[in-house]
Amino acid sequence: MNGKEVDRRRFLKKGAGLAGWAAAGGVSAATAQTGDSAAPAKDLEAYGERSHFVTSVRIAPDPNPFGLTFHVFTPLQDSVGIITPSSLHYTIAHRPYAIPDINPEQHRLMIHGMVDRPLILSMADLKRFPSVSRIHYLECNGNKPQPAYKTVQRASGLTSCSEWTGVPLSLLLKQAGVHNGAKWIIAEGSEDNKGAISLPMAKAMDDMLVAYGQNGEPVRPQNGFPLRLLVPGFEGLCNVKWLRRIKVTDQFYMTFNEFDRYTSVDPRMAQLTNYEQRPKSVITFPSGEQQLPERGHYQITGLAWSGGGAVRKVEVSTDGGKTWKNAEIQSAIHRMAHTRFGLDWKWDGEECVLMSRCTDELGQIQPTVFEFARFWKQPVKVVLTPPPDGMSGHHNYILPWKVDRDGKVTHGLVGLA
Amino acid sequence: MNGKEVDRRRFLKKGAGLAGWAAAGGVSAATAQTGDSAAPAKDLEAYGERSHFVTSVRIAPDPNPFGLTFHVFTPLQDSVGIITPSSLHYTIAHRPYAIPDINPEQHRLMIHGMVDRPLILSMADLKRFPSVSRIHYLECNGNKPQPAYKTVQRASGLTSCSEWTGVPLSLLLKQAGVHNGAKWIIAEGSEDNKGAISLPMAKAMDDMLVAYGQNGEPVRPQNGFPLRLLVPGFEGLCNVKWLRRIKVTDQFYMTFNEFDRYTSVDPRMAQLTNYEQRPKSVITFPSGEQQLPERGHYQITGLAWSGGGAVRKVEVSTDGGKTWKNAEIQSAIHRMAHTRFGLDWKWDGEECVLMSRCTDELGQIQPTVFEFARFWKQPVKVVLTPPPDGMSGHHNYILPWKVDRDGKVTHGLVGLA
Repeated sequence: MNGKEVDRRRFLKKGAGLAGWAAAGGVSAATAQTGDSAAPAKDLEAYGERSHFVTSVRIAPDPNPFGLTFHVFTPLQDSVGIITPSSLHYTIAHRPYAIPDINPEQHRLMIHGMVDRPLILSMADLKRFPSVSRIHYLECNGNKPQPAYKTVQRASGLTSCSEWTGVPLSLLLKQAGVHNGAKWIIAEGSEDNKGAISLPMAKAMDDMLVAYGQNGEPVRPQNGFPLRLLVPGFEGLCNVKWLRRIKVTDQFYMTFNEFDRYTSVDPRMAQLTNYEQRPKSVITFPSGEQQLPERGHYQITGLAWSGGGAVRKVEVSTDGGKTWKNAEIQSAIHRMAHTRFGLDWKWDGEECVLMSRCTDELGQIQPTVFEFARFWKQPVKVVLTPPPDGMSGHHNYILPWKVDRDGKVTHGLVGLA
Repeated sequence: MNGKEVDRRRFLKKGAGLAGWAAAGGVSAATAQTGDSAAPAKDLEAYGERSHFVTSVRIAPDPNPFGLTFHVFTPLQDSVGIITPSSLHYTIAHRPYAIPDINPEQHRLMIHGMVDRPLILSMADLKRFPSVSRIHYLECNGNKPQPAYKTVQRASGLTSCSEWTGVPLSLLLKQAGVHNGAKWIIAEGSEDNKGAISLPMAKAMDDMLVAYGQNGEPVRPQNGFPLRLLVPGFEGLCNVKWLRRIKVTDQFYMTFNEFDRYTSVDPRMAQLTNYEQRPKSVITFPSGEQQLPERGHYQITGLAWSGGGAVRKVEVSTDGGKTWKNAEIQSAIHRMAHTRFGLDWKWDGEECVLMSRCTDELGQIQPTVFEFARFWKQPVKVVLTPPPDGMSGHHNYILPWKVDRDGKVTHGLVGLA
């Protein structure tokens, strides 16, 4: 028996004396702590917390010009990977801003209208259907970089990405028996203003989800607990929260929501191609208001996504768009999901402009603000005007970051508006 | 101008009057609430919370027979999708059970031993390397279903799955310049007992990650904040938390951890094939102590994974293993990751036994407890004995659930031990 063996036997003997230490129900006393070992396990048993050194939070920086919506922005500058922690998911509350406090036992989803068999489903009923879990981003069409919005959180923080679990809406519609000639669904939420919207049947039968799960647990209250509609790749507004009713119709409805949320009701709103968001990307590091401490190697990193499907390619420019390099894709690629990209970069201490550009599986390419303005036949100044601007579409133009010689990072669209 | 148009104009006018309502910094007053609209947005602005109707928690039900470890089990019975919320990730604390409270600004990772250029890296240094984000499960080899463990949480809750972000260890080792003849790394944590372990160089150069991100935010304290080693597919113990040192060596070290954690030090521990976990699956619904309210259609659902790579197939039996059906894979399949499966099932009200069986990309098939015992040359009774049982490997045998005629679900291994 060597020395280690002796130690081990002594150890086990001491260990045995601790057998009753952690009583049923958890640790009831902490052993003596040494060094920086501070937190006994008890406090964090049921539902763990993040480190007190981690202080990243969402912000709700200012009111919408109309006072009709309340926006809470995700801290993209601190993001890693592609999953947004549910506690940091962006959220938008519409007047009167209240989050419905719904008892899931009492919640029901009604499917009616042009169907053979109207359905009223409890949450337990829904869980008897086959589910699917998919990683999808959500983005508000109000996510519009302006020169006045100095950080990536403020300029682009109305996008987030989660694993969503739920029942394919197509299964429920097949169960209900949709009539020939039904071309639209009207989805309605439980909040005071109902959050209703018209959506095309083709999309409903394709990949919409009636989602009860988000990142492995029930959908969070701010994201629609206990049930929300997930419409992959369509603008955030389509993804009706606190979902309680789906009406099958043969026509687009001008709902309160569609009527209320935009200054000019655009007939294009009723088109599939306008709901579907375009390819977009944003550099999260280095980004606005950050500071590079010195010259040398850095990892430029960011997120890319598209309503048109999978990200095919992300390019990064470090010279304001003169030359482009393919970035490395650093996560799995899921369709209609955030995709993490990165590029090794050696900063030589000179002023430069960083840009990223996403190309999606359809071959669509993210435009510069000049290309974007040309496409929409608007002056750049109008594109870069805060809402209301008469433009309710997806603002997917490239957001450049300027690195000054002192390492300070500032918004690259300043001076254009 | 129709009635709607009039309403809309009146509305916008009223809305404009609310322009200053949501002052910078967030909502400072709640408008009158109606119905069940209770929670003003303010409370949930910075870092959102789950609904108060959601009460799923981890448990730490009883001490290890030696009193050496403290286990906190994930509530698998409530899981959806493949991501485990970080707050519900299983965790194991080793004596003296304390979670190091590490200031990330002061944390360093040292890489030394048989290298040309020893490295001491800060967290900021690490973030200058290219990162990758991958979804991987972790499972403790102590995750051993026993007849006495009645729920799926208690029987199998020492497994969880997250998106992990970090630097491939291979990049850091290349940077350090590993000597010829270096065959092992010794990874060490910051806790009082150091949690060190020997790991083969081949795996280090393949897919190990030095991870600082978990599910989109910094690794949680209970999972190793600010830095942990991720060793995809290897038993949980290998994934050193609070990682501070990696020593490159030409031999396996008998560390305190390896010495301490097992009743018999098995020479196979030094073999790659013993670290790597085998194919496994578990039905999370219906599972132990749950109650089926009535005959009829249900969705059998669960999780499958393997240390050997991707899940190729999951089969489900509803007749105790006499016949098997292919389950539907209901999530993306990632290598060494939880994979969600499901199967439509009509319960006829008779007693039956539900089982799931995972086959991985290597063609390995999850065994029954009888096959498992035969393979390990142990009586079934020994396999089903709570630790210490002389068996420190991966307990991947099938966990059957028995459905009684009254709909009560009980443990299917009762009576064998």
